[in-house]
Amino acid sequence: MHNPQLNAGGELQHLLTLEGMPAEIIERILDTAVPFVSIAERDVKKVPLLRGKTVFNLFFENSTRTRTTFEIAAKRLSADVINLNVGVSSTSKGETLLDTIDNLVAMNADMFVVRHGESGAPHLIAQHLSARQRAHIHVINAGDGRHAHPTQGLLDLFTIRHYKREFRNLAVAIVGDVLHSRVARSLIHGLTTMGAAEVRAIGPQTLLPTAVEKMGVRVFHDMKAGLAGCDVIVMLRLQTERMKGSLLPSAGEFFKHYGLTTDKLAMAKPDAIVMHPGPMNRGVEIDSAVADGTHSVILPQVTFGIAVRMAVMSILAGG
Amino acid sequence: MHNPQLNAGGELQHLLTLEGMPAEIIERILDTAVPFVSIAERDVKKVPLLRGKTVFNLFFENSTRTRTTFEIAAKRLSADVINLNVGVSSTSKGETLLDTIDNLVAMNADMFVVRHGESGAPHLIAQHLSARQRAHIHVINAGDGRHAHPTQGLLDLFTIRHYKREFRNLAVAIVGDVLHSRVARSLIHGLTTMGAAEVRAIGPQTLLPTAVEKMGVRVFHDMKAGLAGCDVIVMLRLQTERMKGSLLPSAGEFFKHYGLTTDKLAMAKPDAIVMHPGPMNRGVEIDSAVADGTHSVILPQVTFGIAVRMAVMSILAGG
Amino acid sequence: MHNPQLNAGGELQHLLTLEGMPAEIIERILDTAVPFVSIAERDVKKVPLLRGKTVFNLFFENSTRTRTTFEIAAKRLSADVINLNVGVSSTSKGETLLDTIDNLVAMNADMFVVRHGESGAPHLIAQHLSARQRAHIHVINAGDGRHAHPTQGLLDLFTIRHYKREFRNLAVAIVGDVLHSRVARSLIHGLTTMGAAEVRAIGPQTLLPTAVEKMGVRVFHDMKAGLAGCDVIVMLRLQTERMKGSLLPSAGEFFKHYGLTTDKLAMAKPDAIVMHPGPMNRGVEIDSAVADGTHSVILPQVTFGIAVRMAVMSILAGG
Repeated sequence: MHNPQLNAGGELQHLLTLEGMPAEIIERILDTAVPFVSIAERDVKKVPLLRGKTVFNLFFENSTRTRTTFEIAAKRLSADVINLNVGVSSTSKGETLLDTIDNLVAMNADMFVVRHGESGAPHLIAQHLSARQRAHIHVINAGDGRHAHPTQGLLDLFTIRHYKREFRNLAVAIVGDVLHSRVARSLIHGLTTMGAAEVRAIGPQTLLPTAVEKMGVRVFHDMKAGLAGCDVIVMLRLQTERMKGSLLPSAGEFFKHYGLTTDKLAMAKPDAIVMHPGPMNRGVEIDSAVADGTHSVILPQVTFGIAVRMAVMSILAGG
Repeated sequence: MHNPQLNAGGELQHLLTLEGMPAEIIERILDTAVPFVSIAERDVKKVPLLRGKTVFNLFFENSTRTRTTFEIAAKRLSADVINLNVGVSSTSKGETLLDTIDNLVAMNADMFVVRHGESGAPHLIAQHLSARQRAHIHVINAGDGRHAHPTQGLLDLFTIRHYKREFRNLAVAIVGDVLHSRVARSLIHGLTTMGAAEVRAIGPQTLLPTAVEKMGVRVFHDMKAGLAGCDVIVMLRLQTERMKGSLLPSAGEFFKHYGLTTDKLAMAKPDAIVMHPGPMNRGVEIDSAVADGTHSVILPQVTFGIAVRMAVMSILAGG
Repeated sequence: MHNPQLNAGGELQHLLTLEGMPAEIIERILDTAVPFVSIAERDVKKVPLLRGKTVFNLFFENSTRTRTTFEIAAKRLSADVINLNVGVSSTSKGETLLDTIDNLVAMNADMFVVRHGESGAPHLIAQHLSARQRAHIHVINAGDGRHAHPTQGLLDLFTIRHYKREFRNLAVAIVGDVLHSRVARSLIHGLTTMGAAEVRAIGPQTLLPTAVEKMGVRVFHDMKAGLAGCDVIVMLRLQTERMKGSLLPSAGEFFKHYGLTTDKLAMAKPDAIVMHPGPMNRGVEIDSAVADGTHSVILPQVTFGIAVRMAVMSILAGG
């Protein structure tokens, strides 16, 4: 489908996916985020960029953590934030998704942050706003089905750039449940666009998408081989519900082969950084010694995540 | 019971019901709402009229949509808003309604927006505040049982006045489940007070209150006859739970007789407007061709709803 | 365990418990709260002391009322408040308490208001922040297990001082379920520190902690004897779930022996005040004639509770 995230002038209208997003726009977002990192360290962590604007956190799928990061970002930009846990409200009364959107538009919404279990829902909302000529209203995809989680991808890129300066010569390994991970998909698209030298996917056959190689990714089933010489290791969260099915034997078995331990980490470059989108399953996909170790940049990722979301919101609102 | 919504000077102290409310007060609210419509279109949608005041959204009955409209209205007036979903808190600990109110009053509340399943609950709260001499605290009824939903009635009046300029010569048809509808009751009182030429109720015998004619309403069981020559059509939401009982044969049957289609709409005046309080059941009480058609003013109703709620809040707080 | 609530300079770093808190710090909090009582009576109930700061209401145990008091206090200090009902979020995804904290710290939190079912949880968080050298982040215990509820203890002290001027010559009776009450524990520590002449615990054997006399408290099983000559009566809420076990015969039986009636109240001094932390079970631990009578200061307690929480927050943030 046509991607409406850029307007006719090539500027960011919505943030829906990193797939196909031009490198210069990604760079502009990352550059804009830099000063927001320092704002968050100030005594008064607020700027008036979105003052008087109304941001709706539209969560059709529950996620306290992601909702919180957007709520903080919007409040630090001085917006009014309305949290709508839509799963339990209007849709249960038989209203369609687009009727819900039309109603909130009629309340003079400025921005929708949308999390939805169905891939493409934020896309659909953005197209609907276009069709209604509501170019002043912006949509941010906060995770849709298995499709994309672009602000997570951007904060991952920000983190990598922060520690490694540039993408050109990097080997990045993404480990674990790549198949079900919108985080992995968004990051792979971002890394490819930014020109990372090599992107690797490491995991058992059952947790890697069959088409992953078409995305320009090298596949490894053996973790040590996959980590050899890496600059960046991105551990994915293992959805424990996967283990109920036939995809995985057990958490213990998974940890043995794909859990990141000091031992396996030693295969990567000495200055490799370790990332994780959170929340972590300690002892399942990552050992505590690594999670809390000197290579870990998992908590800085969270800090940068607020700054990146502020950057996206301020670019959309001010663009 | 005595209606405490006007104070000794005849000014608005609480908004509990449109029944018995003087026309000049209704007009003042509608007039006050006009500039708030334009504020919502501005870049900074905020005015400081309720700055430093604390508004409690006290929802004893869950309603995300209505709660959201009041939350937006209060925030655009710069109030601090506290959302209390009371169904799941203190009352379950055995505290009485009035003890809950006394506690929130002791926290220096300025305004209560109350939604309650029992008719008369906001009334009871208002009387209690009077008895305690808390004249500076205001109650807004956000829907009580089958009794009243006065801000919905006011936004309906605002919408009609916006499109039709005056009420005098209008024929207004209210269609569907009038029996269970506090929206219908509030609108009928408002229209009668504002001097609408004719108010009609259209629906099956089982969904019309037996005493509706005493309210000055003409009853129709045949929809086309009822719509003939109408200026305004107000479709009511059909609570699908009604259909589980014996009141209605089926949604399909209902739509056939009382669903608003282009065909039936043709009976009304050529410039008739179509309204609906939302959320809509498309294909049950209203056809999509009508809901999305040129006669529909359903989304402007939502926009006006925010402005009307801002008007009510600012009149109460500033009065 | 070491109490990290005071920093090396002896200043308040966290508010975890009244046990061992120096009298001068308690006095400073109470003194600071005085002007906040008048701010809450003003038209604009807001001061900019916490502007641009982010306060997390971290409720691992649901309590709408307590959460509301902290939310109001923080908003009146102009902070940004994020409510996290943690029971239903990350912890259910297998994340540890301290990982949740580290994540929120990484979002540049300034203050945590923590309610937790486990005694010592806020303590653990405070120690963790110390270990991580996050001296600019503050923890307020909003109730942990059966351990402590220090802001309730402080508001009780504020109330007593407000009506009785000083603690020296007072006899204070705490009545009911002292065994399970963190409110009672905090108040007993506070009264002892402030030099109250006598603290009494009144209740059936099964509801009094065995070691209560070691806390400097006189024990009474007969209510009239216990109330004789008292200046202050603090009624505790009876958790109705206690009655399902073997601790109590029935609510009626309890009321007969330990419910505060006008009759029993007559044993206390003529100017005795009656307190209750709320929410009240009328007819279980307190008779309505007393709850609503002239001796009752139950609602002023609520008002003072906001002021005391504002005082604690502003001292921590500004300290």
